[in-house]
Amino acid sequence: MPLYPRRTVAELKQLRELTGDENGAQRVAWTETWEKARAWLRETVAETGAEEEIDDAGNQWFTLRGTSERAVLIGGHIDSVPNGGWLDGALNVVAGIEVLRRVAGEGASPVTIRLVNWADEEGARFGRSLFGSSAAAGSMADQDELRALTDREGVSLPDALAEHGVDLDRALESRGQLDSAAAYLELHIEQGPVLESLDLPLGVVLGTFGVERHRVTWRGQAAHAGSTPMDKRRDALAGAAKLALEIREIAGRTGDGAVCTSGGVVCRPGIVTSVVETAEQLLDQRHLDAERLASMLAQAKKASERFASEERVEVEFERIWSIEPILFDETLLGFCEDAIREVTDTAHRLPSGPLHDAAEVSRAGVPTVMLFVQSLRGLSHTKLEDTKEEHLELAVAALDRLASKTIDWVAAGGGR
Amino acid sequence: MPLYPRRTVAELKQLRELTGDENGAQRVAWTETWEKARAWLRETVAETGAEEEIDDAGNQWFTLRGTSERAVLIGGHIDSVPNGGWLDGALNVVAGIEVLRRVAGEGASPVTIRLVNWADEEGARFGRSLFGSSAAAGSMADQDELRALTDREGVSLPDALAEHGVDLDRALESRGQLDSAAAYLELHIEQGPVLESLDLPLGVVLGTFGVERHRVTWRGQAAHAGSTPMDKRRDALAGAAKLALEIREIAGRTGDGAVCTSGGVVCRPGIVTSVVETAEQLLDQRHLDAERLASMLAQAKKASERFASEERVEVEFERIWSIEPILFDETLLGFCEDAIREVTDTAHRLPSGPLHDAAEVSRAGVPTVMLFVQSLRGLSHTKLEDTKEEHLELAVAALDRLASKTIDWVAAGGGR
Repeated sequence: MPLYPRRTVAELKQLRELTGDENGAQRVAWTETWEKARAWLRETVAETGAEEEIDDAGNQWFTLRGTSERAVLIGGHIDSVPNGGWLDGALNVVAGIEVLRRVAGEGASPVTIRLVNWADEEGARFGRSLFGSSAAAGSMADQDELRALTDREGVSLPDALAEHGVDLDRALESRGQLDSAAAYLELHIEQGPVLESLDLPLGVVLGTFGVERHRVTWRGQAAHAGSTPMDKRRDALAGAAKLALEIREIAGRTGDGAVCTSGGVVCRPGIVTSVVETAEQLLDQRHLDAERLASMLAQAKKASERFASEERVEVEFERIWSIEPILFDETLLGFCEDAIREVTDTAHRLPSGPLHDAAEVSRAGVPTVMLFVQSLRGLSHTKLEDTKEEHLELAVAALDRLASKTIDWVAAGGGR
Repeated sequence: MPLYPRRTVAELKQLRELTGDENGAQRVAWTETWEKARAWLRETVAETGAEEEIDDAGNQWFTLRGTSERAVLIGGHIDSVPNGGWLDGALNVVAGIEVLRRVAGEGASPVTIRLVNWADEEGARFGRSLFGSSAAAGSMADQDELRALTDREGVSLPDALAEHGVDLDRALESRGQLDSAAAYLELHIEQGPVLESLDLPLGVVLGTFGVERHRVTWRGQAAHAGSTPMDKRRDALAGAAKLALEIREIAGRTGDGAVCTSGGVVCRPGIVTSVVETAEQLLDQRHLDAERLASMLAQAKKASERFASEERVEVEFERIWSIEPILFDETLLGFCEDAIREVTDTAHRLPSGPLHDAAEVSRAGVPTVMLFVQSLRGLSHTKLEDTKEEHLELAVAALDRLASKTIDWVAAGGGR
């Protein structure tokens, strides 16, 4: 069966009809609607002859056996956030069906092809993202914490998983699934405005940003807004304000896609008649280069010490979370660039700000690459999320070219 | 009876014992403890022969009749915030007793002397300050709003007042009390750090600041902290941060005690992974000069428009509250300066940031002046509020000199 990218668009719409409502996609992992989406996927893939398997972490695998057991993996996630979009995650799963059809239609493949629908990428119900891929990659180190998680209704994560046939204590046994993996490919919407601003449909993803996330606490002195002269104040908000502006300079000096964000400041006492005593500021810094990320954090800390001294306040950095940058495989980056060039003019290389299942697979040592397709207005995690249909079709075509090149490479002994 | 300032300190301590606990003063207006304080005042003043009267707004008057009905008023408030200090408001009431004693001891006075304990200056229970003085001054324009106020237990303001013999509908009838007022004097702790920083016990209060209070709303665009390049952002927090820093420059340029405060910023969505879409910022600006206050507001607005344009966000100013500056009487300012110089070296002139009952009386057209005594560490509205005893004694002596000069002035036809 020849590749027919328009079918992917039609199937995505079908899935949207089946699992969405007037507020958007409702394919939240570990729910009935998510099961409905998995059942739809099962039925739709069936015609390719690929064998289905649900692993110990709830990941849904479809395997098209080839001459060699060594496998090229195509991965995505059919789960969404509540009131989400029709493309985030599901795009690659559905595009992957089309690649399976094309490969199956050509008869015996030299290598095995596997489509994986990772379980609970979004973490929308329990707040822990990348569940299935981190289990399979062996990087899930927080099972005790996971055991204690509950959703808004008070249902525990282990109970919710059990309803869908997953035993949390056995989830790490899904690790065997990557034993035969020679390479991993993932197509995703960009979820950002870069490709749209460059007027490009597709991009090669260099890797996922490393992230340094801190809570920065400024401590001054509450004082009456009327009776305290300006030069007698120790204003915690002044420190936070200076840092909120300085991080833009730090990102600008660092360049190459560096981003720094202050997502909010909580002021106490936070009343109109008092100088701010305490300001708790959120800081998120991201870069694809580990050294430059470390330097951005060091610059933020150094500037904060200076601001604290200028304002006679105290400042403290507390790390909330961090992750190293993940760089994708050089050979696959080249294949991805070639694949994009075969279906459109330009193959722009860009980093991914958001994390993806691909990062987990890459950390597990499987050569990995991602392909981005333009997002309209950079929106995702909302029903307004959208991509032009012609761009979706180009993306399916490029993914197929990329898969084809990767299959040839693995067949010739490339990959892991 | 000669003036004995040390007695005032002893009586303030007695009042503290009677109406405070381990958390501080508890003389909240319209409570049993407040009634206990009023009863203590009644008993303590009795020996002076002054006649007590509770007016229609709950203000407690003690009148020492003189040859003329024209009266010199000495005012304060015995009510406190919950867990308050021993001096805020009560100081002048208790110092006033000592002045009444001295005047009464000298026999017939040429003019009438009245000590007034204003009802509910703090507004601690119902959130409306200056209740009694604004009623007497005729500036209470919000009786319909007052009727709807309730305390934390759901008791309505009219019901609470009724328990203490006050009918809200008749409160404005207290206006007659100021008919005979020729001059008004008030001693208060500074509640700020200026006198302490100058190492001065006492200061002449020029007037109370005018206040411009606004909610400044910045509107940008929420965007993913990882996938949105710096130059594509419309960050509402950046506008708020710039204004938080700019208002210090505006106050500095304006000078003469100008103060500008941003008491807090509320960010939405306020999460670490998103650029701030909306930042609601509190702005409080104060000056003793109406024109310069207006200019400070205009400068804040103009700068905000510039910041909004730089950051490609929107900004909107919404007035929460404002009041004109109140300037005290020139002749009384002179008497106050002379009185301070007679008991200590220097008579520093300074504005009052916080509002006081004196501002209401002054707005009603009664020549008014205030005298400040140093506050340790500028603290008030806390049990940590304190003033050195020797400074309290100097304050009583200065208030008495001021009263003496004012009585002579009014007797000679001065005042209103």
